[in-house]
Amino acid sequence: MTKKNTDSKLAFVIHGGAGTIARTDLTKKQEAEIRATLGESVQAGYSTLLAGKSSTEAVIAAIKVMEDSPLFNAGKGAVFNASGQHEMDASIMEGAGLNAGAIASVSRIKNPIILASKVMTDSEHVMLMGDGAEEFARQLGFEMMEPGYFHTDFRWQQLQRIKTREQVQKDQQDQWFSTVGAVGLDRHGDLAAGTSTGGTCNKRWGRVGDSPIIGAGTYADNNSCAVSATGHGEYFMRYVVAYNICKRVELGTPLQESADTVVNDILVKANGEGGVIAMDRQGNIATPFNSEGMYRASIDTKGVMEVSIYRDSSEPEGALTGNVDH
Amino acid sequence: MTKKNTDSKLAFVIHGGAGTIARTDLTKKQEAEIRATLGESVQAGYSTLLAGKSSTEAVIAAIKVMEDSPLFNAGKGAVFNASGQHEMDASIMEGAGLNAGAIASVSRIKNPIILASKVMTDSEHVMLMGDGAEEFARQLGFEMMEPGYFHTDFRWQQLQRIKTREQVQKDQQDQWFSTVGAVGLDRHGDLAAGTSTGGTCNKRWGRVGDSPIIGAGTYADNNSCAVSATGHGEYFMRYVVAYNICKRVELGTPLQESADTVVNDILVKANGEGGVIAMDRQGNIATPFNSEGMYRASIDTKGVMEVSIYRDSSEPEGALTGNVDH
Repeated sequence: MTKKNTDSKLAFVIHGGAGTIARTDLTKKQEAEIRATLGESVQAGYSTLLAGKSSTEAVIAAIKVMEDSPLFNAGKGAVFNASGQHEMDASIMEGAGLNAGAIASVSRIKNPIILASKVMTDSEHVMLMGDGAEEFARQLGFEMMEPGYFHTDFRWQQLQRIKTREQVQKDQQDQWFSTVGAVGLDRHGDLAAGTSTGGTCNKRWGRVGDSPIIGAGTYADNNSCAVSATGHGEYFMRYVVAYNICKRVELGTPLQESADTVVNDILVKANGEGGVIAMDRQGNIATPFNSEGMYRASIDTKGVMEVSIYRDSSEPEGALTGNVDH
Repeated sequence: MTKKNTDSKLAFVIHGGAGTIARTDLTKKQEAEIRATLGESVQAGYSTLLAGKSSTEAVIAAIKVMEDSPLFNAGKGAVFNASGQHEMDASIMEGAGLNAGAIASVSRIKNPIILASKVMTDSEHVMLMGDGAEEFARQLGFEMMEPGYFHTDFRWQQLQRIKTREQVQKDQQDQWFSTVGAVGLDRHGDLAAGTSTGGTCNKRWGRVGDSPIIGAGTYADNNSCAVSATGHGEYFMRYVVAYNICKRVELGTPLQESADTVVNDILVKANGEGGVIAMDRQGNIATPFNSEGMYRASIDTKGVMEVSIYRDSSEPEGALTGNVDH
């Protein structure tokens, strides 16, 4: 065991998905609600760090806010699969000991990120799936939610639209991947990353994307960085995106350059849409995406908070951006 | 598209699992049967390459031999989970376009590696799991096997032994991970890798190991190498073993050194038991393992075939080792 640093700078960053949503598709009210929840989530994570708790606890706290909100494709508000059901995935990893936990395809767990963390701490395994994962949850005393809990009219209508459109033009699917994720650096200098998703709307055949895959959707290593991804999962799996970025940082390439190379060069050439949030042990933050927008929020090592959706600097000024009191 | 080389050297390597099996645990007859099947498998792959077919087809041909044999923990002969059922995983990846396919937790598919290859070629996805993966298979006309097909008395008795022993001393589980895998280089200079497994005996809660995880159990990239792993899956997932080795090769470290560093340094320090087979685009072969033995066989670029189980050079001479006529 290396001696713990107890005065590391604190930093926290979250995402709520990336995609091609046009500004005109979001009403002012919707946009305000999304920004408010992103702000609430990043502050939940950061305040956990301020309280002296671990980056793992902070990641769980931040993701729980987005899982409990109907606005994101994780937990309540998860998309429907082709059978009109929910199949949720999540993963979490600690940079200190490279411990990790993941679950795939659970349908009755309120907070998949909490169950993923229990796989890490309360089992000998890294990944559990399906009914077996829910049996593990039941043994730990998790409440099993009724399917109605996860229902949102917005997602149900999205499924109906896609099902109709599928017969006309399969390529025109909604391309907004509102997977959620969080990355944090705690007072001990320990990084952690987590990701949670409902997958893709109208998915069939037990499809699993990158979110529960350690290395693809989530990775954390104190010797490099921590990453959570969102996007067209198949590409993120084939290019092992999260670990790919960490390996570059480990070998000396700065965080921003490492994340940019993977997201805006390698993935763009492969036609893999999406983005990542990444943080190194100095608390540097990178949030590259190659889609039109990515829901994201951060509080940097100086306590400066930002909440953003689009690429340019024309983000509206508001109460959610500014210094955080600490 | 880069122009295809059509006169690459050919090479092929397979594994049938790694672990702590003692020489005294294998009867002469068992050992001879295992060596014969390893030889049959590597020759099935190599003869596919000789016929001018792709490394992908060769990987499938070689793994099919081991899946169809009751001697290995894949397909027929897969271990039983804690409920006395089979949950099989497989994955395959092509080095040319980084295409990949994987299935997790299927119980009625005779050759999981073939289904994984169909996920790669006949779906937009990389990974399908459980009942959904079997529904995909059914739509493609795959025969659904009865559970009895996968039954072997040896594996059933192994489950009973472990269940009894679990109550006494949990750590004393059988530590032989007889996952199977193959890696090949075809005349076009294209690499491919594949892995297939029944997972761990007595597994619970829908546990998924590294075998179906692109990056952990399987990876292939013409710009670096191709790898198939076998071992204590949780460690192979946390250290993203297959991609970890490929990335080192991509950055200029020789294949043998790259594979050795990950298997005999990083994994040993982490207490992660197992091994890998790896091949670069020059047809160099590395088969490091940190366990007492690893079932393996190879035919190198000169056509020299080797079949081995243990670490030292005291392998018995036999008809299965020598030059392959081509």
